[in-house]
Amino acid sequence: MSVFDRAKIDAMEKRFRAAFINSLSGFKSANLIGTADKEGHPNLAIVSSVIHLGSDPPLFGLVMRPPVVPRHTYENMRSTGIFTVSHVHADITEQAHQTSARYPRELDEFQAVGFTPEWRDGFKAPFPKEARIVLGLKLEREVPIEENGTRFMIGSLQWVDVPDDALAEDGYVDIGHAGTVAISGLDAYHRTSAMSRYSYAKVGKPIQKLDPIKGFSTR
Amino acid sequence: MSVFDRAKIDAMEKRFRAAFINSLSGFKSANLIGTADKEGHPNLAIVSSVIHLGSDPPLFGLVMRPPVVPRHTYENMRSTGIFTVSHVHADITEQAHQTSARYPRELDEFQAVGFTPEWRDGFKAPFPKEARIVLGLKLEREVPIEENGTRFMIGSLQWVDVPDDALAEDGYVDIGHAGTVAISGLDAYHRTSAMSRYSYAKVGKPIQKLDPIKGFSTR
Repeated sequence: MSVFDRAKIDAMEKRFRAAFINSLSGFKSANLIGTADKEGHPNLAIVSSVIHLGSDPPLFGLVMRPPVVPRHTYENMRSTGIFTVSHVHADITEQAHQTSARYPRELDEFQAVGFTPEWRDGFKAPFPKEARIVLGLKLEREVPIEENGTRFMIGSLQWVDVPDDALAEDGYVDIGHAGTVAISGLDAYHRTSAMSRYSYAKVGKPIQKLDPIKGFSTR
Repeated sequence: MSVFDRAKIDAMEKRFRAAFINSLSGFKSANLIGTADKEGHPNLAIVSSVIHLGSDPPLFGLVMRPPVVPRHTYENMRSTGIFTVSHVHADITEQAHQTSARYPRELDEFQAVGFTPEWRDGFKAPFPKEARIVLGLKLEREVPIEENGTRFMIGSLQWVDVPDDALAEDGYVDIGHAGTVAISGLDAYHRTSAMSRYSYAKVGKPIQKLDPIKGFSTR
């Protein structure tokens, strides 16, 4: 076991520190953010910071890096007020990672990495046809994170596509069954295998294991 | 494939919707938040919302539910200004989940679920001795999320414990190797298996696979 105090962390070489610190929050979501500019030119970018903010209303948050250089996804989100979030699954991981290259504005990441842009009627943000779980969101608010210039973007869910065989009877979506992967650090992609679902924890009552799909107790 | 629009989502039964929406952000981090009150009484609570906010300075964020009922973790974080974040690993998952039961203030979750509280010299927030990756954080700021009353808590890293055999030469921490698990939905815990690390994406250059541990190219 090694202990790293703040002085040791601050003294780390820049890229070493980025890889190190990025690993420490635990596993991260792997999502592709689909946007378009006012003229409808599509854009796609991988992010690992999408989180659940609330279920009623259905809200999600994600972190955008500081807009010190042109950031097409950020500009498109602000300009159209909408975006899509598509889970990265195991069959599209390499293409998804490639969207993080700094393509010039006129180059469309869908074409560059080999995804097919798909559009939902009346919703002006595209998503990859190759994705299995896709969320359509409306940008509700942008919170500046003064500490480092990043932006916390809050979106409300407008619609979602879910494969029928991944939806459990109690509402749980078995995203691992749909192939969704997890990220750790800056660049490490992981498949998952379900250990267990656990019953709602109550004081003085032992936890029960739930069947992953049905949401029923199995012991 | 089923499409759920907002009207369908709003019409879902409350617990069904909570399970459904909680599944949609992708895989989530599994962490135990350790705090203490002014008198040093320890508290431990599982959260799935810890995210990376930045590496320089090293910043993390997490979501706390609305403080409409007494929330011991939230109150302790505000009162002492510090907290610990410990990765949940596969051997402590059931105990970790049990910390989400609503224990009364005078009951200490460490004792209730069977963890040993450990204290770092001069740092007044405990962590489970059974954890392998532990972060010590200082609360920097609390951002109210007006849309639903939750709080986005921003913390800066003060120190971290990492197992030596999980640290790669380039700074990446192989958290899967350390047993860290991922959460999906409200209650589903997952082991992970590394697919690959990918090289930094560049326009017009194919991605290379990197060895998980060393950070070296393997093809």
